[in-house]
Amino acid sequence: MKHRRIYLDNNATTPLHPEVKNEMVEAMEMFGNPSSMHAYGREARANVEHARRIVASFIGAHEDELVFVGSGSEANNTVLSLFACASNLCIPGFKARQTIVTTRIEHPCVLETSQCLAHRGTTVRLLDVDRYGRVDMDQLKEFLTDDVGLVSVMTANNEIGTVQDIAAISRMAHEAGALMHTDAVQAFGKLPLHVDDLGVDFLTMSAHKIYGPKGIGALYVRKGTPYCPFIRGGHQEKGRRAGTENTLGIMGLAKAVEMRAAEMEDEAVRLAGMKEVLRKGIEERIDDVLFNGHPEHNMPNTLNVSFPGAEGEAILLYLDLEGIAVSTGSACASGSLDPSHVLLATGSDAERAHGSIRISMGRETTMEDIEYVLDVLPGVISKIRSMSTAYIKGGEHAAAE
Amino acid sequence: MKHRRIYLDNNATTPLHPEVKNEMVEAMEMFGNPSSMHAYGREARANVEHARRIVASFIGAHEDELVFVGSGSEANNTVLSLFACASNLCIPGFKARQTIVTTRIEHPCVLETSQCLAHRGTTVRLLDVDRYGRVDMDQLKEFLTDDVGLVSVMTANNEIGTVQDIAAISRMAHEAGALMHTDAVQAFGKLPLHVDDLGVDFLTMSAHKIYGPKGIGALYVRKGTPYCPFIRGGHQEKGRRAGTENTLGIMGLAKAVEMRAAEMEDEAVRLAGMKEVLRKGIEERIDDVLFNGHPEHNMPNTLNVSFPGAEGEAILLYLDLEGIAVSTGSACASGSLDPSHVLLATGSDAERAHGSIRISMGRETTMEDIEYVLDVLPGVISKIRSMSTAYIKGGEHAAAE
Ligand SMILES: Cc1ncc(COP(=O)(O)O)c(C=O)c1O
Ligand SMILES: Cc1ncc(COP(=O)(O)O)c(C=O)c1O
Repeated sequence: MKHRRIYLDNNATTPLHPEVKNEMVEAMEMFGNPSSMHAYGREARANVEHARRIVASFIGAHEDELVFVGSGSEANNTVLSLFACASNLCIPGFKARQTIVTTRIEHPCVLETSQCLAHRGTTVRLLDVDRYGRVDMDQLKEFLTDDVGLVSVMTANNEIGTVQDIAAISRMAHEAGALMHTDAVQAFGKLPLHVDDLGVDFLTMSAHKIYGPKGIGALYVRKGTPYCPFIRGGHQEKGRRAGTENTLGIMGLAKAVEMRAAEMEDEAVRLAGMKEVLRKGIEERIDDVLFNGHPEHNMPNTLNVSFPGAEGEAILLYLDLEGIAVSTGSACASGSLDPSHVLLATGSDAERAHGSIRISMGRETTMEDIEYVLDVLPGVISKIRSMSTAYIKGGEHAAAE
Repeated sequence: MKHRRIYLDNNATTPLHPEVKNEMVEAMEMFGNPSSMHAYGREARANVEHARRIVASFIGAHEDELVFVGSGSEANNTVLSLFACASNLCIPGFKARQTIVTTRIEHPCVLETSQCLAHRGTTVRLLDVDRYGRVDMDQLKEFLTDDVGLVSVMTANNEIGTVQDIAAISRMAHEAGALMHTDAVQAFGKLPLHVDDLGVDFLTMSAHKIYGPKGIGALYVRKGTPYCPFIRGGHQEKGRRAGTENTLGIMGLAKAVEMRAAEMEDEAVRLAGMKEVLRKGIEERIDDVLFNGHPEHNMPNTLNVSFPGAEGEAILLYLDLEGIAVSTGSACASGSLDPSHVLLATGSDAERAHGSIRISMGRETTMEDIEYVLDVLPGVISKIRSMSTAYIKGGEHAAAE
């Protein structure tokens, strides 16, 4: 059993879908620059536009509303940076209102960009969330004064899986005259998303979370929405994003989307079933556990659980020795010893936040994998807890001895 | 002969090197997120850092000085945007001087970004070039007042191939207390480049011009140079560029660099030889031609030539019908009917600029290809000229009839 390898960190990134691999290997022969007018260029252009139609239609958008970018992070930076630009009149006739409303549980690429804008004079209001990670709708109402230009709320949280009511938030944003953005990097390909149902003006996607390649993402921009390129230069993407198109990545993204369209619905049921087995098993076999995230409004693949008295990093490393890959919070924050900003926002104390791991399943996860985790995890937790001098079961987690 | 296909647009983009293909196909099995702490993540991290050492050492840099980014365009935007940031004190203790000096012949990703900064209060001074496309060094001296924070001059021009004396320009920039950036996207992998010999603080690279994948580039940032991330969020690239690393692209770039290191020197000789045959052949077989770019300080693969009385776009399309892919100026500007800003800056009139094509050879170009071009091109030019009512050989190019 020792050399078994089980990957349960699909919210950090996913393996390429075999069909995506095939598509990309084939596409390697096609190398033209889509901006070139000759045959090589036209072939590349046709492939890029075909891919655009596939991705756009998956979210109910028109192909003209889709901009290919280099990552989810770039898409989010693009949307937020509209403000820096609009305030300087790069968009003729458009003067953005200078307040952004977002949440305390966004991905760092939203939070840090907001913070940078705040340095430059933008007002940023951070919404609180409840203990399940859902946005405080009363506070949203309060925050939505007539100086708010943009509301940015993630569809699903990467760490705890909580899904927001984006449609309701969009309605409120629009009533207040603000634009609405959602970072759907985690929800994309896991939950059905339709831009009109969601009512959003901007929606962020990334390929590597849905069995596509890293380094490629897409941004939905509703027709008629003020827009300004973030990366400037050549007229690629109809002047909306400069840089020679990543044709291989774009074709890989489109193929990944095609596969999601075929598999997503069944997968959601299968994953939700396995997650329930995992949750119940952990509850039965391990004392003193706390589940994080919303019990219902949650992604079917994500389980975040705290084991007070056991450090998340220690759990991760012990599981790694057993061939099981999980994560503590988000990969982007790894290396940092701060407790998860998401768990703190849900009201967890630092100990609960430090003692949590995220198990995120994917299309390659099997019931056997789950059973293996349930076999291994209890021993790992009790070993770590027994080494921890500060742990006393059932509360009083601080300073024993 | 009809279905022969000859690609002579290697300055726009290049086919993947077979070894790059192999490397990337193999790397497709490795999917971890380099920020993850488990085995999958560590494997990806090791591969990324190995790639970083290869690319850094190719330009004489330390691995810590290399930041992987999504394109050459992004790298250039990153450098120029330091000013927007620095002026807002995101870099503690650093207040950038608010003037940028660059040239009239830069790539749009430098020129348009500069223009955007100019809207926000940065002063931008554009250097003139001589008729061969070399920077006016007297004007540079004049421009280098004590408010200049950054000098940005491309190493080699994408359209006409002219190579600048970056070492001399760097020296002057530094004497004036400015930082020095060079966009080396075209020179990288075609000419030997060493960051210390060049004396630059920033240097931009892109993989798809050297038989690597599209959508991946790198930025050299000299140790100790003020820096601020352009894409903000996760702590990837030591906090210098957010977004999950494009592992496949990074490994493809490194393999492309390895291949360049092995092939570049011999290739330069081979290409220069073929270029001379091509130049002489055109001169002998076609009347009234004008070569653009510097006759000596030029890239070995690039030949830019004007055929007064023949529109560049018409030439391109006729050659395309014969299976030959060339370009008019840069791919990024295609779709625009403006004459090349580069040729105009060298003092070409609009007609000469409109009548030019760029032939850019690469590692797959053979002498047979060149001979084929020399067979086909004279007929194409005379056909187009004969249809052009405005053309009278040897001058008076306007309004005949
Ligand atoms: C001189 C120069 N700079 C920058 C770029 C942009 O590079 P990329 O296509 O990787 O964004 C190009 C090519 O397109 C170029 O020729
Ligand atoms: C919610 C969320 N937003 C944005 C990102 C950033 O996406 P990318 O890695 O493509 O930059 C991630 C993942 O890393 C994410 O989970």
